[in-house]
Amino acid sequence: MSDIEGLTNHQVRLAARPNGLPGPDVWDHTSEPVAEPAEGHIVVQVTHVSLDPAMRGWMNDGKSYVPPVGIGEVMRALAAGRVVASKNSGFAVGDVVTGTFGVQEYAESDGAGVQTVHPTDEVDVPTYLALLGMTGMTAYFGLFDVGALKDGETVVVSGAAGAVGSVVGQLAKIKGCRVVGIAGGPEKCAWIVDELGFDAAIDYRAENVKKALRAAAPDGIDVYFDNVGGEILDAALTQLRFGARVPICGAISTYNATEVPPGPANYMSLLVNRARMEGFLVFDFVDRFGAAAKEMAGWLAEGKLRSREDVVSGQVSDFGEVLLRLFRGENTGKLVLQIA
Amino acid sequence: MSDIEGLTNHQVRLAARPNGLPGPDVWDHTSEPVAEPAEGHIVVQVTHVSLDPAMRGWMNDGKSYVPPVGIGEVMRALAAGRVVASKNSGFAVGDVVTGTFGVQEYAESDGAGVQTVHPTDEVDVPTYLALLGMTGMTAYFGLFDVGALKDGETVVVSGAAGAVGSVVGQLAKIKGCRVVGIAGGPEKCAWIVDELGFDAAIDYRAENVKKALRAAAPDGIDVYFDNVGGEILDAALTQLRFGARVPICGAISTYNATEVPPGPANYMSLLVNRARMEGFLVFDFVDRFGAAAKEMAGWLAEGKLRSREDVVSGQVSDFGEVLLRLFRGENTGKLVLQIA
Repeated sequence: MSDIEGLTNHQVRLAARPNGLPGPDVWDHTSEPVAEPAEGHIVVQVTHVSLDPAMRGWMNDGKSYVPPVGIGEVMRALAAGRVVASKNSGFAVGDVVTGTFGVQEYAESDGAGVQTVHPTDEVDVPTYLALLGMTGMTAYFGLFDVGALKDGETVVVSGAAGAVGSVVGQLAKIKGCRVVGIAGGPEKCAWIVDELGFDAAIDYRAENVKKALRAAAPDGIDVYFDNVGGEILDAALTQLRFGARVPICGAISTYNATEVPPGPANYMSLLVNRARMEGFLVFDFVDRFGAAAKEMAGWLAEGKLRSREDVVSGQVSDFGEVLLRLFRGENTGKLVLQIA
Repeated sequence: MSDIEGLTNHQVRLAARPNGLPGPDVWDHTSEPVAEPAEGHIVVQVTHVSLDPAMRGWMNDGKSYVPPVGIGEVMRALAAGRVVASKNSGFAVGDVVTGTFGVQEYAESDGAGVQTVHPTDEVDVPTYLALLGMTGMTAYFGLFDVGALKDGETVVVSGAAGAVGSVVGQLAKIKGCRVVGIAGGPEKCAWIVDELGFDAAIDYRAENVKKALRAAAPDGIDVYFDNVGGEILDAALTQLRFGARVPICGAISTYNATEVPPGPANYMSLLVNRARMEGFLVFDFVDRFGAAAKEMAGWLAEGKLRSREDVVSGQVSDFGEVLLRLFRGENTGKLVLQIA
């Protein structure tokens, strides 16, 4: 246990609830000694912090699917790390694990929800936060279960160069679908088509999305997987086919709005096209994570899926700045903060 | 065949597409001689015209689930009447029938979609346009299939004193649900509670709907059956329970808007509560109309369901004025124009 004696844990805590984009004033940088784990607990040295749009929601007060992060609490985050002390027979020092460790250098955990993973040269730690982590699970269950995807359908996904969207499109391609991705900027658009095999890309910053969808999906959309909300959701609703499904995964375009953003004015397309819009949370499918991860890992090994992580090296204190990259749409693939 | 010789057919035709509420200028009143039916056709003397919110959509140009009524065409309407001439072996003179006969005194039909009905003292002709017609089918399939109602759930329905809503609430009561109706004005609210057995009513004209829902459905809403759209839909979305279903039947509050009405700003409640919002059209369930009508007729006979029709006597030329009553929310139950 002497490994952790004398270590200091630097942490990022929520200092205030943000109004709009979370600026530096919402974070407190604290430090405290790393303590020996309690009986049954482990201490994890965090090596990689996952940055996710959902974090913005956790920072707000009010009822949601999880309690908000309290003022003064370490910011909630999925992360990966290495066990450096263990009083839990399920984990050994040196194990690489993922879990909700928070934005800090060292996390104590009772092991609940902690997964031991086995990184290799081909599948490294960030991939366990991306394709083989919650991100991949979100894409998998959102598309296959909530989206009820059928082989050969037309799928449109927004945030297509993002962590979840880039997986959604690839999964749909595996199922023989026509896949159109909506992303911001020519580089992202080129990447999803040239590297990931999407059939078409729409640059929402340069194009009229509604017109571009009409051209790229002339027979309409069977599944619109929404990561962004706002005007893009509204445009997609106008192009639904009969019986379309619209899984609502997120609405990153609205998360930092300082006034209530408008709802999707074209929702009556759901009636005209007998379509459905359905929200989901990946945690609802936890019983099937194992099987899904196995299938995803197989596709990854076969080269049918590619995982891309946008890894930023830094200190935990850089977290606030890196998070803003997510909301500015600067990342391609999964945004991860690697603790130097 | 001499029965129809010399008769004149008065008609209401769409003269112009309305902007907002359809005023008298959108209608043309025409007349023409009633002709002998073609081989295989019948002539129906229309006795009752059904007035439905969907009519407003049919008057708009643009892609929808049915083609718009063309300028100069007889206004589309479901109706009931009596066969007065037949060259179709499926129908005899004197048969009482329902069908899409339009707003006119006499309709020629090839019999497609025409149903022969058997009114009695207990179940008269308007009931075949209401509880036992498309209205009842809409309530039945919207609640049981799209809404996937489970016994004992909490159901909220808007337009609760209207044709569809009043049936929805009664059907939910048959299934042992807690039923809250949203309607406009104290009389309607009293009617749905005192006469139809709803557990609670919210007068949207007098109450804050969101607060009132919180009080009337403190554990949240399992099924919100939406007939009205707009602010009431948005309020209901804030009160959904985990796994809620929101069948979208209509949006009468917005049909006469002259600018694009705002969408439901609280749609992200679908994500937080893993809920779904789904549009439907009754015609999608046509294969099961027979069985559903039989079940509904049984409940009607047992006194478990009540049908109320708001029957206005007049001429076909009164159609435009009667239609406005619908959009002003002046009807209780199914609005029907009986041709004097």
